Amino acid sequence: MKDIQSLRDHRRINIKKVGVKDISYPITVLDRANKVQKTVARVNMYVNLPHQFKGTHMSRFIEILNHFHGAINLRSLQLILHETKAKLQAEAAHMEIEFPFFLKKKSPTANKTGLAEYLCKMHGSLGVVDDLTLEVAVPISPPAPVQTSSGLPESLGHWGVATICLRFRHFIWMEELIEMVEDVTCHGLQWSASSPKPPDYTLSVEKIAKDLAVKLSGHPDINWCSITVENLSQGFSTFATIEWPEEAVNFNPNSVH
Amino acid sequence: MKDIQSLRDHRRINIKKVGVKDISYPITVLDRANKVQKTVARVNMYVNLPHQFKGTHMSRFIEILNHFHGAINLRSLQLILHETKAKLQAEAAHMEIEFPFFLKKKSPTANKTGLAEYLCKMHGSLGVVDDLTLEVAVPISPPAPVQTSSGLPESLGHWGVATICLRFRHFIWMEELIEMVEDVTCHGLQWSASSPKPPDYTLSVEKIAKDLAVKLSGHPDINWCSITVENLSQGFSTFATIEWPEEAVNFNPNSVH
Amino acid sequence: MKDIQSLRDHRRINIKKVGVKDISYPITVLDRANKVQKTVARVNMYVNLPHQFKGTHMSRFIEILNHFHGAINLRSLQLILHETKAKLQAEAAHMEIEFPFFLKKKSPTANKTGLAEYLCKMHGSLGVVDDLTLEVAVPISPPAPVQTSSGLPESLGHWGVATICLRFRHFIWMEELIEMVEDVTCHGLQWSASSPKPPDYTLSVEKIAKDLAVKLSGHPDINWCSITVENLSQGFSTFATIEWPEEAVNFNPNSVH
Amino acid sequence: MKDIQSLRDHRRINIKKVGVKDISYPITVLDRANKVQKTVARVNMYVNLPHQFKGTHMSRFIEILNHFHGAINLRSLQLILHETKAKLQAEAAHMEIEFPFFLKKKSPTANKTGLAEYLCKMHGSLGVVDDLTLEVAVPISPPAPVQTSSGLPESLGHWGVATICLRFRHFIWMEELIEMVEDVTCHGLQWSASSPKPPDYTLSVEKIAKDLAVKLSGHPDINWCSITVENLSQGFSTFATIEWPEEAVNFNPNSVH
Repeated sequence: MKDIQSLRDHRRINIKKVGVKDISYPITVLDRANKVQKTVARVNMYVNLPHQFKGTHMSRFIEILNHFHGAINLRSLQLILHETKAKLQAEAAHMEIEFPFFLKKKSPTANKTGLAEYLCKMHGSLGVVDDLTLEVAVPISPPAPVQTSSGLPESLGHWGVATICLRFRHFIWMEELIEMVEDVTCHGLQWSASSPKPPDYTLSVEKIAKDLAVKLSGHPDINWCSITVENLSQGFSTFATIEWPEEAVNFNPNSVH
Repeated sequence: MKDIQSLRDHRRINIKKVGVKDISYPITVLDRANKVQKTVARVNMYVNLPHQFKGTHMSRFIEILNHFHGAINLRSLQLILHETKAKLQAEAAHMEIEFPFFLKKKSPTANKTGLAEYLCKMHGSLGVVDDLTLEVAVPISPPAPVQTSSGLPESLGHWGVATICLRFRHFIWMEELIEMVEDVTCHGLQWSASSPKPPDYTLSVEKIAKDLAVKLSGHPDINWCSITVENLSQGFSTFATIEWPEEAVNFNPNSVH
Repeated sequence: MKDIQSLRDHRRINIKKVGVKDISYPITVLDRANKVQKTVARVNMYVNLPHQFKGTHMSRFIEILNHFHGAINLRSLQLILHETKAKLQAEAAHMEIEFPFFLKKKSPTANKTGLAEYLCKMHGSLGVVDDLTLEVAVPISPPAPVQTSSGLPESLGHWGVATICLRFRHFIWMEELIEMVEDVTCHGLQWSASSPKPPDYTLSVEKIAKDLAVKLSGHPDINWCSITVENLSQGFSTFATIEWPEEAVNFNPNSVH
Repeated sequence: MKDIQSLRDHRRINIKKVGVKDISYPITVLDRANKVQKTVARVNMYVNLPHQFKGTHMSRFIEILNHFHGAINLRSLQLILHETKAKLQAEAAHMEIEFPFFLKKKSPTANKTGLAEYLCKMHGSLGVVDDLTLEVAVPISPPAPVQTSSGLPESLGHWGVATICLRFRHFIWMEELIEMVEDVTCHGLQWSASSPKPPDYTLSVEKIAKDLAVKLSGHPDINWCSITVENLSQGFSTFATIEWPEEAVNFNPNSVH
């Protein structure tokens, strides 16, 4: 029989987490070429409270955000988590930041510079488990495997997306991560015009995920990595996910989504 | 030094999961009053593959969905998972279904019947861990704690949402679950007009989450439950989450008291 | 000086339109193969009021919707508009309905049947101007202009979308309209395998829009038509729009030639 | 009978407009307190072409955007339209920019400063009709018309939104426009605590729209204005729209959406 007594009594029901979600906020992030870049983020902040804790001042989350709003980066994220944990007397503090990151890119065919957009996420936790993950979604626009003189577009277009989520030993520039991914998803699929026939490749999500795993597993500063490759060219998504080291899977509460 | 050998070799990089996402699909779900209800779902299906498995036929997911499309409910979900696991020779199969569910509702003040919408999710897994969760999001529109003759609207409006996710021992109607939630979020906050003054309540996400936990913890068929109450009335969200039994989350039998 | 009198006086400020928007509602639409199809719509209803009108009962829009909810089609849309205009004592009544419409489709290569989704809209007005437009968005997935033995996918994927909006003389099945569009966007771009080289086409939004205009302008029941072709394969959209007869837009009989 | 000849002939089918849509782009806008503010916009650019025009270079839109990207404001918008019209040899050029605009705001009750977000749009046309409209969406969070000691929240929350679209004679700061709106939607609904009973107001979309019309019609620099007030507190939207001067309605091609 269920121990109704222990549940029906308000004093024994414990709040697992409290916080704020979906706050739109202008932030400044690090940019290798320009030092900083201003963008607009969606922010979530929440805490785990000790048992029997009486109430939380939700407004404190916003106060802390306002206090730091000049700069959100991997370093200030730690400071924000410390301040959140202290000011809310929490067991653990968490912060999630999602923002578009823009990079100047040269078009491979024309001698033109455009602006490419990458959706990034940072997720930090301080307390029961200290953790920091960095995520970036890199569009996949593979080159067409035929001569463009045939009238086919130069690229197969916005075919899909590779989402890389990682934990690192030392700081990694977002730009470096994006370059590594594009090295595989763009140049790695390139077809040599001098080759007598189109390459015998299939644009398989599993194959591209494996190629990315081979590439990224060589980086000395990556501790843990999850790679999801999606093909969005069918009106829905087909996807493949690789994670390593595989043992780490069980300790990652965020791996499901 | 990193064991490059084991990672740089394609043969040792294992796909963790593959599947399809964001498929829009018309489905038929169970409806207590009308036997069935037709609605439109967003479907995800994916599998975990045994190591060294050579490729997946993504089209099989769609074939299986087409095979069953006449009816998606808690029973057929099991059959779909079995068929997916078998046809894709998978270690484990997963399915997520999200759909709007409509119920006729009487307006509390006027003698009128309207249609209320509830966003529902089913998530089933078969294989390494067999699991089934049911989720429903119930809008919270608390009554205004003052006489409506003052010109205040009868309700404080779409103040927030309570999202209930649960595992159950025996079948529970979605309608029954919704009624239990609304019993707390609507009638439980009601203010007696004969009372000399407005009730001394605060619309606190923590308080409502605890009230819901007290209510739902009394249901004999609920095995596990997570309750998140969100206040959406500020342009962003403030929220509180309760989960029980806590052991199922923390794996720590001493954490409750 | 501004004529403050005429504007600062509440009695002379006239509400242009009032109504309800973004109502999620289950509806039944006509289906050529199965007589009817159940789906879920997003509904807007609004009216123009005579000057000096004192207040609107917003709840009446919902009552009228509930009254008809068993069936929303081109015929009942007229009845709903009449009832709305009468019950709200309006000068004009308007209704917009947007819904996913599903059709069984055979895959061109495999001998399999899938389900394709098309986003449809109906827009009706009754009063000052009587009007009815029908809109359907048809995904464009052109076949790849090379042999599939090269490993290229059979189709260039979800390259873009053609949105057709029209006024008609006599009833046209949504299915017929979709077939006409796909005849151009799919078969019309087909490359004959016996041809010695890939066709010299470019996937131009302007070219496809013109091809669709040629095709649809031959239909005797279409009174007016707007065609927008979008290329979504670049992460953003490039588009071209054609409308005819042009006079209906420009009111300039000399503008065509 | 239909003049099939004139339509079936490709040479006589004229593209009405071509362009690019949904480009995500970092921009800098004017800010009264800080001179400039960096934010992220969604941009649409399109042109009307002269008849018989042979093709458009879509990449030129992006080139022009890149050329100006340091600053998008009411002045540079005119320059962008001129350059677009010239470089694309167009009859008319159009640009739409949508972006979140952030303002520091003091909380009325606590002595704290937060950041409020307003969604803004600029729409410029140059050519057949020269036009420029400015739009801002201001959230409506009316104060609760009872003593907060009763436990009721200080505000009724994010009850709705007022969307103001206008044409002006002289430059108007976005901040000034927002202040005028909030003067009505916030302070104008304030209830004096010394008053013996709650005010006899109803939160009617029509009433608030009229109050805003009275307020804004007094501004000497507003040429034309459309006001839509939405109540979002019910899970869907009820709305009322006022436009003045009323005669101008017929000349506004954008008034429908």
